[in-house]
Amino acid sequence: MSAKHVVLTVAYDGTAYCGFQRQRPGPKASIQEVLEGAIGRALGAPVRLVGAGRTDAGVHAEKQVVSFRAATTIPLPRLPYAVNRFLPPDIVVTGALEAGDRFHPRFSAASKVYRYTIWRAEFPSPFLRRYSWHRPEPLDVEAMRRAASFLVGRQDFAALGAAGRPVRDTVRTVFRCEVEERPPLLVVRVEADGFLYKMVRTIVGTLVEVGRGKLAPEGVREILASRDRRRAGPAAPALGLCLEDVRYHSVDTPAGLL
Amino acid sequence: MSAKHVVLTVAYDGTAYCGFQRQRPGPKASIQEVLEGAIGRALGAPVRLVGAGRTDAGVHAEKQVVSFRAATTIPLPRLPYAVNRFLPPDIVVTGALEAGDRFHPRFSAASKVYRYTIWRAEFPSPFLRRYSWHRPEPLDVEAMRRAASFLVGRQDFAALGAAGRPVRDTVRTVFRCEVEERPPLLVVRVEADGFLYKMVRTIVGTLVEVGRGKLAPEGVREILASRDRRRAGPAAPALGLCLEDVRYHSVDTPAGLL
Repeated sequence: MSAKHVVLTVAYDGTAYCGFQRQRPGPKASIQEVLEGAIGRALGAPVRLVGAGRTDAGVHAEKQVVSFRAATTIPLPRLPYAVNRFLPPDIVVTGALEAGDRFHPRFSAASKVYRYTIWRAEFPSPFLRRYSWHRPEPLDVEAMRRAASFLVGRQDFAALGAAGRPVRDTVRTVFRCEVEERPPLLVVRVEADGFLYKMVRTIVGTLVEVGRGKLAPEGVREILASRDRRRAGPAAPALGLCLEDVRYHSVDTPAGLL
Repeated sequence: MSAKHVVLTVAYDGTAYCGFQRQRPGPKASIQEVLEGAIGRALGAPVRLVGAGRTDAGVHAEKQVVSFRAATTIPLPRLPYAVNRFLPPDIVVTGALEAGDRFHPRFSAASKVYRYTIWRAEFPSPFLRRYSWHRPEPLDVEAMRRAASFLVGRQDFAALGAAGRPVRDTVRTVFRCEVEERPPLLVVRVEADGFLYKMVRTIVGTLVEVGRGKLAPEGVREILASRDRRRAGPAAPALGLCLEDVRYHSVDTPAGLL
């Protein structure tokens, strides 16, 4: 029984977790350790997995991609059922595929798509309270769209990555940054080849400042040029953020992910 | 300070409750008692309220309508904020209006609209697991639509009300019964002038039997004619059901509800 390179797509409600990545022991578990535990029980052997995106505490995923190597005789179409048996209902494996050796969930990804949901009604929603940011004040959506347009392209995003986390290379390519009205929701979708720490939440926090008239749309250009994190808006809270998709075009990617 | 007849619109996630109506003490509270407690604390005097629909344990509401009489100096637009301060996040007052004496949330209602949500994807959703019924098997939606059409009109619904609860008059008028595809969701919407106990859930359970090919669409006509509850499908689970709207056309109804 030779080891397979297994790829799983996973959806999760991040409310109860300290984020995707395994951390020092704390009050909340990580998605990674719960998944590794369930896969290990399903396969009868421990596994170590790699994920496409390190979602933060409270951030959700509609489609996270993880992979691991394991020798297993469970047919791939049955594997999600086998693993889901050992998962709590807020984490669900939605598919299983086999990848070539060179596939890596993060390094092979061409882009990731994050969606941020804002609930604009006067009062909070009992249904979307875990999955959206309640902002009841008037927001100038056209101004937000104009500001969002300045974020697209290959640029230095140092001003929109979290403060206090020095990264050598802060240049990323944002393929799209769209603001979609679906009353009472406002949805911000950002697709990029990579993200700095808290980048989407800082983009959303800054766009909301623009929507509230606290910042001109063109101010976003100046903030980017400044490379100074202190000039951007505060990061929007984690609960509105969801990893919506991971896109691959590379060799050894399983066909089901292309 | 003369007593006002105050009408509130309320949204709630019913997951943690034993239903709308106050019951004998048990492990779960009722929506009614939690609302009455919060209103009482906001106004500084106990109130007794009446609701438009007695939603069952685990059933949700996007727009429940309740009313009570109270002497209060809090301006109506501030009242939702005052009450929400004392409510848990799964119950939210979304509006306050003043009604005439003859208004009654239930008896003045011309119709109520219930929405039932089915999650059709192969695997359950971590986000909609509290708000939808997971039915991954193929469903013939056209057959379900045809069956639904037989439910519209003024008819005796004895076969589709819950067994063991004799009601004198089991004739109701269903204004519409629609099956809407919003992949991966299937949404059943029923509007009627009144509902028997568990009627929407029995309708949905029966429509799913039709969708699975266990019952011909025309079988629904025969079930209705039989007036025999044992011939209908099993009731669908509570978690997929939501009171979406209550409609009024009567005197003394506050303009904001018309």
